[in-house]
Amino acid sequence: MTRTRPTAAALTIGDEILSGRTRDANTHHLAESLTAHGIDLREARFVGDEADAIEAAVIALSDGHDHVFTSGGIGPTHDDVTAECVARALGAPLSVRADARAALEAHYGPRGIEINEARLRMARVPEGAVLIDNPVSGAPGFSIGKVHVLAGVPAIFQAMLASLLPRLTGGPPLLSRSLRVERGEGDVAPALSALAAERPRIAFGSYPAQDAAGRASVSVVARGTDPDALDDALDELSRRIGG
Amino acid sequence: MTRTRPTAAALTIGDEILSGRTRDANTHHLAESLTAHGIDLREARFVGDEADAIEAAVIALSDGHDHVFTSGGIGPTHDDVTAECVARALGAPLSVRADARAALEAHYGPRGIEINEARLRMARVPEGAVLIDNPVSGAPGFSIGKVHVLAGVPAIFQAMLASLLPRLTGGPPLLSRSLRVERGEGDVAPALSALAAERPRIAFGSYPAQDAAGRASVSVVARGTDPDALDDALDELSRRIGG
Repeated sequence: MTRTRPTAAALTIGDEILSGRTRDANTHHLAESLTAHGIDLREARFVGDEADAIEAAVIALSDGHDHVFTSGGIGPTHDDVTAECVARALGAPLSVRADARAALEAHYGPRGIEINEARLRMARVPEGAVLIDNPVSGAPGFSIGKVHVLAGVPAIFQAMLASLLPRLTGGPPLLSRSLRVERGEGDVAPALSALAAERPRIAFGSYPAQDAAGRASVSVVARGTDPDALDDALDELSRRIGG
Repeated sequence: MTRTRPTAAALTIGDEILSGRTRDANTHHLAESLTAHGIDLREARFVGDEADAIEAAVIALSDGHDHVFTSGGIGPTHDDVTAECVARALGAPLSVRADARAALEAHYGPRGIEINEARLRMARVPEGAVLIDNPVSGAPGFSIGKVHVLAGVPAIFQAMLASLLPRLTGGPPLLSRSLRVERGEGDVAPALSALAAERPRIAFGSYPAQDAAGRASVSVVARGTDPDALDDALDELSRRIGG
């Protein structure tokens, strides 16, 4: 009986990533978190703050994945258009909702900050969505169907993901074992390719490196859900390459 | 007379990125380099080492962009399938080519390293492609049509991009100016949205931050090709928000 692992896609939204102004940190954090939770991240995309591109990406990524995680574009300014794009992609009406407004009030009220029209944009939630708690800055994210809408600021993205993940069912965790070999990748490749063909339930990767003196090494990583099978595979590889 | 800026998409290939083992560095470097060169990066995607996913992404991203830059999957092992996927996506035959083999020999020969069958995979180039020099580890990248195939190891990716970019025609460089305001993003949003609507040739973004004491600030960035228009826009914004 093998439980299957749900699949996921990530969508990072923002001109600042594509212009090189900002380095995306959320995709890597999401990848690590999903792997640990037993969900396979299969694809990630970055698009700018353009409504058509966001809507098209949400529709494309929803097809064929169990979850879609978006990051960015849910703040108070004119370029924050993620909520309406997701609502349109899913055909759900969007409006300011009482629970989302209450989350804003709970954050801003005690700080004496006015909830002006711009901030109220952050309480717009598609019909049928479930809020995702934002302990950092109040304005909530939301899940609607398989789409999870999170903030782009890394500290807030991480806090929202921590609120969200326990609600999502993962499969068996994907484990990895690695073997570092002081050889060139091309020397390891023949034995590795043969072993990979023999053991189709294990995913093998090889990652070459060079030290400062120019000496080549390669890290071979075996991924799968059965720890004994991973250990055995790397032992076997080590034997074959005379490691 | 406005020169237009060519558009580009990036495709990062590798299971290690999506599993969270490795943090992608190439997309950010590419974004910065293209912006400086006058090319607009419009979309980026990450996919795993799966032939069908790579081929589909190359086809999808080629449609509607002037350039597609791939990163990863051109080493000597079984999971390095980028060259054949690009060849198939473009309908070009793939074979070991004399000039690519010569590039390998020039690198490995003096080091006394044998070019075995696995390493020879790295000399497979689609018909009609132009090689991209790899001063770090010999095995070349290549350009075919609008698709540029580069290595995934960051030092090699950067070296290949440096070889390639001078061959590509850029548009006028995209400039940016920024204004930091010691206010909440929601306080700046109304004036910013109004100004953005008035000045459609400038792309405005706003990026909130919090210092350790919890004080909010926001960086407003204006992007465009006319430096005076950018300065004027941020002066006007500053005036309107009483900055």
